[in-house]
Amino acid sequence: MSKVSYIKSFLEPRSVAMIGVSRKTGAESFNILESIQHQGFKGKLYPVNPYADEILGIKVYSSIRELPDGIELAVMVTPRKKAAKIVKECAQKGIKAIVIVGQGFADATDQKGKNLQNEIVEIARQNNIRIVGPNTIGTANAFVDFTLSFAKQFALDKIPVGLISQSGLFFGQINELVMIGKGIDLGNGCDVDVADCLEYFATDPDIKVIALHIEGVKDGRKFVRAALSASRKKPVVVLKTGRQANAASAAQSHTGSIIGNDDIYDAAFKQCGLIRAETIDEMSDLVKLFSYTSEIKGRGIGIVTLSGGVGILTMDACEKNGLDVVKLSRQTKEKITNSAPKWLDIANPLDIWPAVMTSKLPLGEAFEKHLLTFMGDPKINAAIMILAAWMEKITPSLTEILVKVAKAHPEKPMILCPYEGWVYDVDRRDLEKKLHKTGKILVLPASDRAARALGHLAGYSESDRK
Amino acid sequence: MSKVSYIKSFLEPRSVAMIGVSRKTGAESFNILESIQHQGFKGKLYPVNPYADEILGIKVYSSIRELPDGIELAVMVTPRKKAAKIVKECAQKGIKAIVIVGQGFADATDQKGKNLQNEIVEIARQNNIRIVGPNTIGTANAFVDFTLSFAKQFALDKIPVGLISQSGLFFGQINELVMIGKGIDLGNGCDVDVADCLEYFATDPDIKVIALHIEGVKDGRKFVRAALSASRKKPVVVLKTGRQANAASAAQSHTGSIIGNDDIYDAAFKQCGLIRAETIDEMSDLVKLFSYTSEIKGRGIGIVTLSGGVGILTMDACEKNGLDVVKLSRQTKEKITNSAPKWLDIANPLDIWPAVMTSKLPLGEAFEKHLLTFMGDPKINAAIMILAAWMEKITPSLTEILVKVAKAHPEKPMILCPYEGWVYDVDRRDLEKKLHKTGKILVLPASDRAARALGHLAGYSESDRK
Repeated sequence: MSKVSYIKSFLEPRSVAMIGVSRKTGAESFNILESIQHQGFKGKLYPVNPYADEILGIKVYSSIRELPDGIELAVMVTPRKKAAKIVKECAQKGIKAIVIVGQGFADATDQKGKNLQNEIVEIARQNNIRIVGPNTIGTANAFVDFTLSFAKQFALDKIPVGLISQSGLFFGQINELVMIGKGIDLGNGCDVDVADCLEYFATDPDIKVIALHIEGVKDGRKFVRAALSASRKKPVVVLKTGRQANAASAAQSHTGSIIGNDDIYDAAFKQCGLIRAETIDEMSDLVKLFSYTSEIKGRGIGIVTLSGGVGILTMDACEKNGLDVVKLSRQTKEKITNSAPKWLDIANPLDIWPAVMTSKLPLGEAFEKHLLTFMGDPKINAAIMILAAWMEKITPSLTEILVKVAKAHPEKPMILCPYEGWVYDVDRRDLEKKLHKTGKILVLPASDRAARALGHLAGYSESDRK
Repeated sequence: MSKVSYIKSFLEPRSVAMIGVSRKTGAESFNILESIQHQGFKGKLYPVNPYADEILGIKVYSSIRELPDGIELAVMVTPRKKAAKIVKECAQKGIKAIVIVGQGFADATDQKGKNLQNEIVEIARQNNIRIVGPNTIGTANAFVDFTLSFAKQFALDKIPVGLISQSGLFFGQINELVMIGKGIDLGNGCDVDVADCLEYFATDPDIKVIALHIEGVKDGRKFVRAALSASRKKPVVVLKTGRQANAASAAQSHTGSIIGNDDIYDAAFKQCGLIRAETIDEMSDLVKLFSYTSEIKGRGIGIVTLSGGVGILTMDACEKNGLDVVKLSRQTKEKITNSAPKWLDIANPLDIWPAVMTSKLPLGEAFEKHLLTFMGDPKINAAIMILAAWMEKITPSLTEILVKVAKAHPEKPMILCPYEGWVYDVDRRDLEKKLHKTGKILVLPASDRAARALGHLAGYSESDRK
């Protein structure tokens, strides 16, 4: 059994003591008991509050001492001054895993906060207790409807994404992306750290991609070892903040992290095989892509577009990201040209509109026929398709066409960029959800972003992993 | 009167001859008559089709010869082989402005297409006719409900954005952004060119920002003169595609543009004071921002966040874009600290959550009070606010709070990034629309993108435009 198996207690505990739960419920109360109930968690809950007998229909304990034995996880939403005492009481109850939500420790401006954090760590070490936090939004696991977050309607989804973060930010959706299948916000990271979580998610069969947000690491050697090992098993996408000088110093006060020169981090990430995202959007695109596939057979890209102009824009982005917008084979060209005017430039990028409009087939069938031909070109390893949301209304529908094409070439990743906004009563987000459900087609909002993501996929695919 | 005043005929014609309109209507017909009717255009329409007497309730003329005199604009949706003859007939009818939608001219693979285009240009010159196209989606003008696009449900909106494009792409929405107040897709640009349109929009009082998508220009000197002059009057955002070698050669065949080394374009854009966007997303962000304001008093940025981690990420982005995340004045700090625990780090970025939660005021009032204090800091020239959509449900609502704060400091641009996805029954897009309507608050999807846009705004504000 892995030495980090204790992390399971933080992600799928059978029982949770909730220390300091408020009697206030409803809007603006941010009650963690209400939020975990709302999520539908099936484990046992033990709220502790000396001033209540019952909250939200659940029996409340007036002290930790009163709690039954054998509780797996405790979460503390209490002021900092009480923290050391509570950790001691948890120790006496035999609780081995604690999440400390509260702030005012290494993140505080005063020395006292730092001392308090050290005191807690000391108690935890003596009692063989593991701590996540302080200064954290907690942990979450969509697979067992579990969340410690105080925000009631977190969008958890059973996606194969393991999130390790130093900020609650990523526990919400990023743009339209749910980032969490399972997630751990390390906060100040006084005990459980990035390396521990990397090690855990690396062997978690529910997880296909690890999303990592860090401001800094404390034990560089441990981090490198864990990152190297994890990235050999599955893609690890990292967003490192605190890069610039002032931001780095702010990060130091935010979570007490030790921040080094960004170049050192960059080199370490490369050495460890981590995939570095530069922006929030890139992080979101990469996590989406790698949760869908981590393999591409080569760098040959096909581009299908309804606009010659955006084809060229996408070609720019492909070249910039080391991808090869391949020349079509003569057979492919001839098959598509068949019905089109002779002067029409049938090439890659394929401006498909004129070829479809001059075809004798009905619109949907013409699209399907040309797309199947195009994707069959042996030089094409993946495709970016810049089509429009209204195509969902034709027969066959855009979804049907794309699924058929994807099934014919399961080894060729396909990204749809439906951003022309020619809506025709189709909601782009509904279309996106529908396509994601098929598990065949990835949707990204812009084709230059699709090229950037595919560049990373190619790099990962080519990397020497064991 | 400006020498490019004829462009008005392309953007708000009183009468339009539509040559080659199809009898097919409804879904999948892409009938431009149907689309212009749908848009609610009030000008007179004269469809021409030898095989119909009436289409969509409108009288159809069997030939151009039969048309009444004095028609301002003609649009041709006809095969290339008929083009020269039709242009001649238009000339005989005294029509002085023609949009040629059809393809197969300089964009074709054969020499014949190029010859046909030259022939048309020759006829136009002799008859003092101006042509937009060929190979274009046409022109559009939300201010008079006018569109020549064959796509029925284009999202036109009376926004102060003048679009000049070499691709139909931008005539659709980019992400969630409607790009067009008025728009001209130049296509092959055989006659009317980028410089002409720049000159026109530069003095159009409806237009506050010019959005320019180009693959290349044919007359460099004319372009530089027009760009220099336009950028002195209003911001011009440019997205240049065909940057990389292969893409450049594709662009040449797409619109027959002469493509030069990208470095030359880059230098020319700088010299002309154009604001260059690198990606579709950046283009969309900049057009949004500049349609809202083109002024900022300095580079001092305030960041308000619900997550320390994203504050640091945003700080990184500010530093990278030459912005100054200023230190708060002692007065500002003291006012905010007032109700908060002493150990709390009240700084910029301001992690506002702990200060609000420890305040004795109700949630919404605490937010409002702290935001007003923060924005009052004299060193802050603009703010990026990373708040959550659910705040629309508190009292006062997020919209009310932000409008109040913005009104108190109208000279300080404010960008809201509501991307935490803690939705609480608030649709982020509805919120965005509501906020945009106030004309006070810009919404962008990610705070690092907000910083990038503000960096450009600062550059433009500082530029020497007499």
